[in-house]
Amino acid sequence: MLVQKYKDMLSGKSVIRELSEFATARGKEIGYENVFDYSLGNPSVPVPKEFTDRMIQLLATRPTNELHGYSPSLGITSVREAIAESLKNRFGIPYTKDHIFMASGAAGALAHAFRLVTEPGDEILTFAPFFPEYHPYVDLTGAVLKVVPPNTETFQINFEAFEEMLTEKVMAVLVNTPNNPSGVVYSTETVKRLADTLKRKSEEYGHIIYLISDEPYREIVFEGVDAPCVSKFYDNTIMCYSFSKSLSLPGERIGYVAINPACADAETMVYMCGQISRGIGHNCPPSIIQLAVSDVLDKTADLSVYETNMNLIYDKLVELGFTVVKPGGTFYIFPKALEEDAKAFSKKALKYDLILVPADTFGAPGFFRMAYCIETEKVKRSLEALERFVKTEYPNAGK
Amino acid sequence: MLVQKYKDMLSGKSVIRELSEFATARGKEIGYENVFDYSLGNPSVPVPKEFTDRMIQLLATRPTNELHGYSPSLGITSVREAIAESLKNRFGIPYTKDHIFMASGAAGALAHAFRLVTEPGDEILTFAPFFPEYHPYVDLTGAVLKVVPPNTETFQINFEAFEEMLTEKVMAVLVNTPNNPSGVVYSTETVKRLADTLKRKSEEYGHIIYLISDEPYREIVFEGVDAPCVSKFYDNTIMCYSFSKSLSLPGERIGYVAINPACADAETMVYMCGQISRGIGHNCPPSIIQLAVSDVLDKTADLSVYETNMNLIYDKLVELGFTVVKPGGTFYIFPKALEEDAKAFSKKALKYDLILVPADTFGAPGFFRMAYCIETEKVKRSLEALERFVKTEYPNAGK
Repeated sequence: MLVQKYKDMLSGKSVIRELSEFATARGKEIGYENVFDYSLGNPSVPVPKEFTDRMIQLLATRPTNELHGYSPSLGITSVREAIAESLKNRFGIPYTKDHIFMASGAAGALAHAFRLVTEPGDEILTFAPFFPEYHPYVDLTGAVLKVVPPNTETFQINFEAFEEMLTEKVMAVLVNTPNNPSGVVYSTETVKRLADTLKRKSEEYGHIIYLISDEPYREIVFEGVDAPCVSKFYDNTIMCYSFSKSLSLPGERIGYVAINPACADAETMVYMCGQISRGIGHNCPPSIIQLAVSDVLDKTADLSVYETNMNLIYDKLVELGFTVVKPGGTFYIFPKALEEDAKAFSKKALKYDLILVPADTFGAPGFFRMAYCIETEKVKRSLEALERFVKTEYPNAGK
Repeated sequence: MLVQKYKDMLSGKSVIRELSEFATARGKEIGYENVFDYSLGNPSVPVPKEFTDRMIQLLATRPTNELHGYSPSLGITSVREAIAESLKNRFGIPYTKDHIFMASGAAGALAHAFRLVTEPGDEILTFAPFFPEYHPYVDLTGAVLKVVPPNTETFQINFEAFEEMLTEKVMAVLVNTPNNPSGVVYSTETVKRLADTLKRKSEEYGHIIYLISDEPYREIVFEGVDAPCVSKFYDNTIMCYSFSKSLSLPGERIGYVAINPACADAETMVYMCGQISRGIGHNCPPSIIQLAVSDVLDKTADLSVYETNMNLIYDKLVELGFTVVKPGGTFYIFPKALEEDAKAFSKKALKYDLILVPADTFGAPGFFRMAYCIETEKVKRSLEALERFVKTEYPNAGK
């Protein structure tokens, strides 16, 4: 018989997907350039030329069996070495290849991290607002994801609620900074306090509480923003990285798990990832993509457009009377809707061809997300629509 | 705490891996060209030029965000369409894109198939000799893999043992034809009888027993061999395919699940695969590889070398007095060792720089596997070593 839990999942509609489908359909009517689609977090800036050049060079020069052959299950050794070296130089943490496990994007990295440190029934805490896919990612391992309510003033951690929820059943805490959907970057103060809390509670409970740091937006940090490396503050950190956003290649499924060398049994954990792979059909990320990426580790796509877009949108939102925390990175912004029911707000926006995602599934009802990974020219035009929307539907906003 | 089951797996040594490591080490002493390494099933023939050309063309001409962007979670629609069309033309089964789910190689396809139709505790039957990775693949889902003992005369199915083991707890039967490690292809008679048995028992138990057909060697079938398409004989078949062997690109992690359109809820099952992905961090196979592969669906690498190698080895084995079933496909052959303990036999062979894998973990003790995906010239030289080995160590073989 077909397994019911997966069948049941089919009836759960994703708001993001529905909105994105609306945008596509509407685009067919009025031209997609006239639909202000802020629904999807799909990178919009081109892949760095160095990546494409390297891919072509590999294809043109390497023997095909060497290029496309099986990668070792932990990843290609030279690639792991290059990543360790790059992280070491960047963050001053003494990574070696023995701390790096190559994974298929952040989803793949997290799938390994969760299985490393939790048995079914164990709890993982994360902080609202949060990426809603964390639910299936965790739930389907058998562990239990619990969400700490947000500090809506700053979208830093709500430590009071956190301490209360950090019981003995919690085996791991999952953070995502820079954050999807808030765009906020955790400050050094936040990360320090988080680390202190975890150390204290680990001791109290007599077991390690691991910190799983999901960092796909690490490279998208705006000018002057304090963006501490989480792993530097807490030994038992499992860093999950993806090149999806920094190199604009989310479809190629490439990332890694980096275990802090100071973590107990760090090297064993990397080998354990290789075992976990056997159970989830992972095997290794695509060989040619591993090789190409390892040559452009310190490059990124031109990410500056995201900051340009953010400033335009932030200024307009403030001008229109929205309550909004200024993003420190990513390509998201997370304002408070102009009525209590963000779904109703988002529905009204559709009349103005504005696709805004209500944030109930992100754990912050009343807010909405805009993914501004779109062309700046379109952002500018969208702001006119936003102004019309607000002035027509909410004439008293901000007054 | 670290999860013990994965930690425990680290102490389990893989015989294949150990032998392969020995081969590498020995290669450093005497030159790898002098080590007759039959341990690993890594394709040796070049990738078809059309694949490489297509990759370069995609990289040189497509906008990078289109090329490397997220693939839909079921796979790129045009790729699923092309695969369905190719399968339909080839096997006369009315596949459409709605029956195809893109997966990361056969391991990825199987990871989805097992989760589709089994809950923890359910049984999956497979037939010895079998690919030993099936154990972690299945065990780590929580289902239970049981192995039907082999018919060592033919390596077709041992139906007597099969019927006995096919209890009400069995939710799926897993076949692998052409078979790793035996090289044998199931005959039409075998597949028909298998299908009849499954139909009868499904009715008797009042639940569908799914047939999971793992087909990475489908394109490597030797001249004149009857190689029926399993899906044609049984409606409730889940085909798991990988391009690893046919196109010689095992590192690129590309394959698919094809649900027989006659299977109950076939289209729902494809959507369910998309949900399963969320739990195992799969997401989608690499976009560029999906696109490149879809243009060379009916091409293969030049696989003829495997048949050449097989014939050379088979003839020599027979001449030296081995009991061996002639392979119908793959790049494996599976003779009976010349003493009861295949491990001891394999150990003695090392003195002659012959790397032969004893088959205990394949579920057929007393046999050994040779993976002849190596250059024909080397095969020829290895046969001299084989002759010396047998004549010295087993002077009475075949007498």
